[in-house]
Amino acid sequence: MTPNKNIDILISEVGPRDGLQSVAATMPTALKLQWLTALADAGLKEIEIGSFVSPKLLPQMADAAHLVVHMRQRRDVFVTALVPNLKGAQAAFDAGVQKITLPISVSEPHSLANIRKTHQQVFEEVRQVIALRNEHFPKVQVEAGLSTVFGCTIQGEVPEDDVIRMALRMAELGVDEVGLADTVGYANPAQVRRAFIRLHSEIGAKAGSAHFHNTRGQGLANVLAALDVGVTTFDASQGGIGGCPYAPGASGNIVTEDLVYLLESMGLRTGVDIDKLVAAREWLQKGLPGEPLYGFIPDAGVGKNFHYAGAVR
Amino acid sequence: MTPNKNIDILISEVGPRDGLQSVAATMPTALKLQWLTALADAGLKEIEIGSFVSPKLLPQMADAAHLVVHMRQRRDVFVTALVPNLKGAQAAFDAGVQKITLPISVSEPHSLANIRKTHQQVFEEVRQVIALRNEHFPKVQVEAGLSTVFGCTIQGEVPEDDVIRMALRMAELGVDEVGLADTVGYANPAQVRRAFIRLHSEIGAKAGSAHFHNTRGQGLANVLAALDVGVTTFDASQGGIGGCPYAPGASGNIVTEDLVYLLESMGLRTGVDIDKLVAAREWLQKGLPGEPLYGFIPDAGVGKNFHYAGAVR
Repeated sequence: MTPNKNIDILISEVGPRDGLQSVAATMPTALKLQWLTALADAGLKEIEIGSFVSPKLLPQMADAAHLVVHMRQRRDVFVTALVPNLKGAQAAFDAGVQKITLPISVSEPHSLANIRKTHQQVFEEVRQVIALRNEHFPKVQVEAGLSTVFGCTIQGEVPEDDVIRMALRMAELGVDEVGLADTVGYANPAQVRRAFIRLHSEIGAKAGSAHFHNTRGQGLANVLAALDVGVTTFDASQGGIGGCPYAPGASGNIVTEDLVYLLESMGLRTGVDIDKLVAAREWLQKGLPGEPLYGFIPDAGVGKNFHYAGAVR
Repeated sequence: MTPNKNIDILISEVGPRDGLQSVAATMPTALKLQWLTALADAGLKEIEIGSFVSPKLLPQMADAAHLVVHMRQRRDVFVTALVPNLKGAQAAFDAGVQKITLPISVSEPHSLANIRKTHQQVFEEVRQVIALRNEHFPKVQVEAGLSTVFGCTIQGEVPEDDVIRMALRMAELGVDEVGLADTVGYANPAQVRRAFIRLHSEIGAKAGSAHFHNTRGQGLANVLAALDVGVTTFDASQGGIGGCPYAPGASGNIVTEDLVYLLESMGLRTGVDIDKLVAAREWLQKGLPGEPLYGFIPDAGVGKNFHYAGAVR
């Protein structure tokens, strides 16, 4: 989804997927629903509720379909999910998601380590998912979330030409959007600007979201860089939970609480209420006792000179 | 000091002053010297070694003159100190500092709370310091470090016009540089760009350094914003120690380790070796046992695709 008329920047909350799948413990479904409800009540307009993967592989995500059905009862939140393959896409479509994100590693060694597929096999799977969507679920959006865009713990350097080639391939295969993800926290602002400028010039309106990690503390600087070159959708997770479990050393999505503060302070409307957002952490803490949560705003509070951007909220 | 031909960005390490004065414990002088040496050996080109204040007020800083004399033996580091008044300036000049920074609160309530002086009293003190410098120590640089530039915990909003008026006044009084400090971690990147653009347009080459805190996690995003509008000198502290002890709730300078990684990743030469810099934390930890140190790079390490900017190091 792109930002609507009431907001300038869309924050896509990925904690319920990216965060919860990274933790060994499984958050009980009832608490997940309380948390998802609190996140939506705080004003988040898009939430990735889970991942449609084998429950044997990730039992934490076994209730994804149930969560989708529940959250679709609300009209104020766009319900998305991560989908690694055709089987997952079918399940996600059946459950009623409004968008799926297909994770696509630009680094082939990472693809092999992560989902045991070569690029050719990935392309074939994307083709089948798009065909299924086109035939039976034409209203559901499909995003390719390119991973390891800014470097890879296995491959090291990932050439920008490889990123753009993959983005073009995804656009040709019929995805609606191509997002860029810094899977392992290697991105720097100069690189972010170059990548999104090229992405936009090559695939135009199909250029999608930015997904940054804060592994090396550079997350919000990378957000600023992406904002500067026109990116309007950002993934973030409450408390910074999550990261890619298959990338050694990677940890920490950018923190939704701190991102909202950055954007609203700069005069960019997110539609999110910071107090309600911080209060939503309670459900996450109840659901995952002892799990560390990150973020500066929950501790420091907003500045005495803070005010929300714009008037329309 | 402005960056020399071998570096693009000057990092001014303020941990030995801003950090150590914020901690109740006093780091032993011998360990301070080991730490300062390790910081200079890591390639830091400017170090604020301490504050010339009454040892009754801040006993942690009582050895400032001794540290200056010791560090002046090196030719590869520019030795600076914080100075709150004429008496401190005399002592700092006598010890042999190459630059002093005068902290000047744009917020008058903050000035009264911090150093118990009205703006008029501050101007008179600056006038006397400049006169002393001009007469007896003409080679020593004087910087006005404007504080509470981006907001104040006491006053709240600080108008940009007040900031510029104070900067002009300082330039008229004869300081060499005017830096802008986010004393309490309220700054956002949009505000940072506006402030430094105006500062530069009003006082030209006297526009100085940026001093950001990471209280709300926005520190490196603010650095990026300042870089974009031509700022070339940044304060930072090892391990993020410090902050303004008189501003309630303020904590955490931006972390030198993470700043070096940001800049070098972006292709901007700092002259700093990250491994040596991280190793220097050992002395800080020995000198202040139990004191928490911050930063992502010391834990996560640099990315596999990281390389230093440029060839001249």
